[in-house]
Amino acid sequence: MLNINIQKEDLLKALSDVQHAISSKPSMPILTGVKISADKEGVTIVGTNNDLSITKTIPLEHKGTEIVSLKKEGSIVLNAKFLLDIVKKAPKTDILITVGKNFVTEIQSGKSSFNLNGLEPEMFPKIPEIEGEIDFSISVKDLKQLISQTILVAATSEMRPILTGVNLTLSSSEIKAVATDSHRLVLKTLSIPAGEEEKNITIPAKSLQELAKILDDPKEQVGIKMSESQIIFQSNNLLLCTRLLEGKYPDTAKLIPDNTTTTVKGNKKELIAALDRCSLLANEKTKIITLEATKGQLILSVTSKEVGNVTEILDDIEIDGEDVKISFSEKFAKDALSTFDKEKVKLEFTGAVRPFLFRCDEDNTLTQLVLPVRT
Amino acid sequence: MLNINIQKEDLLKALSDVQHAISSKPSMPILTGVKISADKEGVTIVGTNNDLSITKTIPLEHKGTEIVSLKKEGSIVLNAKFLLDIVKKAPKTDILITVGKNFVTEIQSGKSSFNLNGLEPEMFPKIPEIEGEIDFSISVKDLKQLISQTILVAATSEMRPILTGVNLTLSSSEIKAVATDSHRLVLKTLSIPAGEEEKNITIPAKSLQELAKILDDPKEQVGIKMSESQIIFQSNNLLLCTRLLEGKYPDTAKLIPDNTTTTVKGNKKELIAALDRCSLLANEKTKIITLEATKGQLILSVTSKEVGNVTEILDDIEIDGEDVKISFSEKFAKDALSTFDKEKVKLEFTGAVRPFLFRCDEDNTLTQLVLPVRT
Repeated sequence: MLNINIQKEDLLKALSDVQHAISSKPSMPILTGVKISADKEGVTIVGTNNDLSITKTIPLEHKGTEIVSLKKEGSIVLNAKFLLDIVKKAPKTDILITVGKNFVTEIQSGKSSFNLNGLEPEMFPKIPEIEGEIDFSISVKDLKQLISQTILVAATSEMRPILTGVNLTLSSSEIKAVATDSHRLVLKTLSIPAGEEEKNITIPAKSLQELAKILDDPKEQVGIKMSESQIIFQSNNLLLCTRLLEGKYPDTAKLIPDNTTTTVKGNKKELIAALDRCSLLANEKTKIITLEATKGQLILSVTSKEVGNVTEILDDIEIDGEDVKISFSEKFAKDALSTFDKEKVKLEFTGAVRPFLFRCDEDNTLTQLVLPVRT
Repeated sequence: MLNINIQKEDLLKALSDVQHAISSKPSMPILTGVKISADKEGVTIVGTNNDLSITKTIPLEHKGTEIVSLKKEGSIVLNAKFLLDIVKKAPKTDILITVGKNFVTEIQSGKSSFNLNGLEPEMFPKIPEIEGEIDFSISVKDLKQLISQTILVAATSEMRPILTGVNLTLSSSEIKAVATDSHRLVLKTLSIPAGEEEKNITIPAKSLQELAKILDDPKEQVGIKMSESQIIFQSNNLLLCTRLLEGKYPDTAKLIPDNTTTTVKGNKKELIAALDRCSLLANEKTKIITLEATKGQLILSVTSKEVGNVTEILDDIEIDGEDVKISFSEKFAKDALSTFDKEKVKLEFTGAVRPFLFRCDEDNTLTQLVLPVRT
């Protein structure tokens, strides 16, 4: 029966990472737990909500320093929330875990001693595996950027389940990522090492969100493996496996207008600050803002009958093309702007009732599209 | 009609302070507003919820630097929440406020311009005043400590309204402050300059809480003035006036036991950390913890049928007197401990069913009492 002495810091980091796969309202009681297994390879901690599972391995030693003292191999399932809190608040830098009769497990640190009612490890669901080598790998930095630029745009409503995912088209040298909630859309491209066969998959945005949270070192590489129904991301001692969304993702290529009539270039931070101020007087639910590009000036405004009105005139703006007046959701515009990491952004309009685009001259890999609102 | 140009930073600080007197659900619409008045004395900003009012004055200049440029004297009432947000997000370091027709007020900073529908200043309630000199003064540091050591213990339920206040008995050289919610009690004494006449008043704990939030410089003095129904605190450019609670405060002197049978001395931080860990397994609603002082050891413990149990043995403990085993609310004990600012605290017990005390050898001005729970 499992008996280990483990460094608090390493156990805490592993439990915090694995926690991201655990649902607060799990479908089966055992899914409130994490499975801890110890053998000569190290200590493995697994959490899953059936859609998403995260596995973290803690090696017995790292660079010659002992992290785990393995007294007895074995495994146990312990409540993830209680265990995380107990480890977080442990008074000493090491923690002794001893599984006893009926899976009752002692967690001891200094003169603090917890006995937790554990569950049978054999009852814990098996985590899917994909045979063979990784398909390709990309850097943590690129993957996290792709995720942060797309997941906000995926639908949160389950009306059309396929739209709650980010769709990836893999070709021989690039990934094309698309997300849409049917009010806005994002298109992002990312170069990958050549040689990949054509594939089209849709990954739940929620799983990508958790993945972004637990990947921390931007210089690391993430290996990616796919099957018909699953995708696995692996990096360092971390392994995340998520099911793919079933069904055909809608064809979005034709939604992006290519006949721009007005182009506005401006400072991203100034635009966000002006939107922020306008939103103070906007209707709390809809947060609709009006933008007007006219006579070389860009004006954002909101009028509220009860409270008053606000007008923001933007400095440092370049406008080309026809005058335009258009209304849209402040949130969608701010979400779109926030995904660009350059100072200057470009807005492209095709009249007052057509979708408009956020782009950037210095980075042609990202297009954000927002639908206007009729007022 | 009011027309001023004012430094953003000073206006923001004043609005943030005055905000503390404004209720989120006011009894009259005008109480959602702050009244701003400008004349040669400076700019005065007032907020009130009828029980509590806060007045802040911004001088026209400070140490030779202009803070307010007074173009026209006058006054206006503007929505406190909108105004605070607008000032917080203003793009420049100065703000121009101009009252126009029908109380519509322009708030301009750089190229950002808001028009807020204002209200007639004559409709704003009159703030109570107390004639004459201050009764006495104490330091911000002492007043904030007295407040933080007592307000947690005042009742939050309106069952017995007088218990929602902190009771002060003023005598010739000291203030005795008492608060109780009938499950616990605090007694705090504070020396004041001699000469004060005997008085007994009860101040709403909520008003004291707001007062503590807006007093920031511990070296300043606070002047105090009292009438039959009101108390005024004044410091620097700040004035807080609150009504007093009506009715007789219960006599609590006899509740504090004086026949201690067990004394436990220990480290405050260690006790709080051990309580914290025990509370992880305690019942979420009641958070009851058992303390046992026996054979020179102090043991804190909780047993939960579903989850398991926890035992904490405290190091660095001195125990004098009889063995004792007692159960109590973790929150009440932690609240009590947190009000001491010394490292070492003393617990005094008179058996398992009598109230017990938290005290400190190095500071005899504070006694915290907690009632045990029968388990």
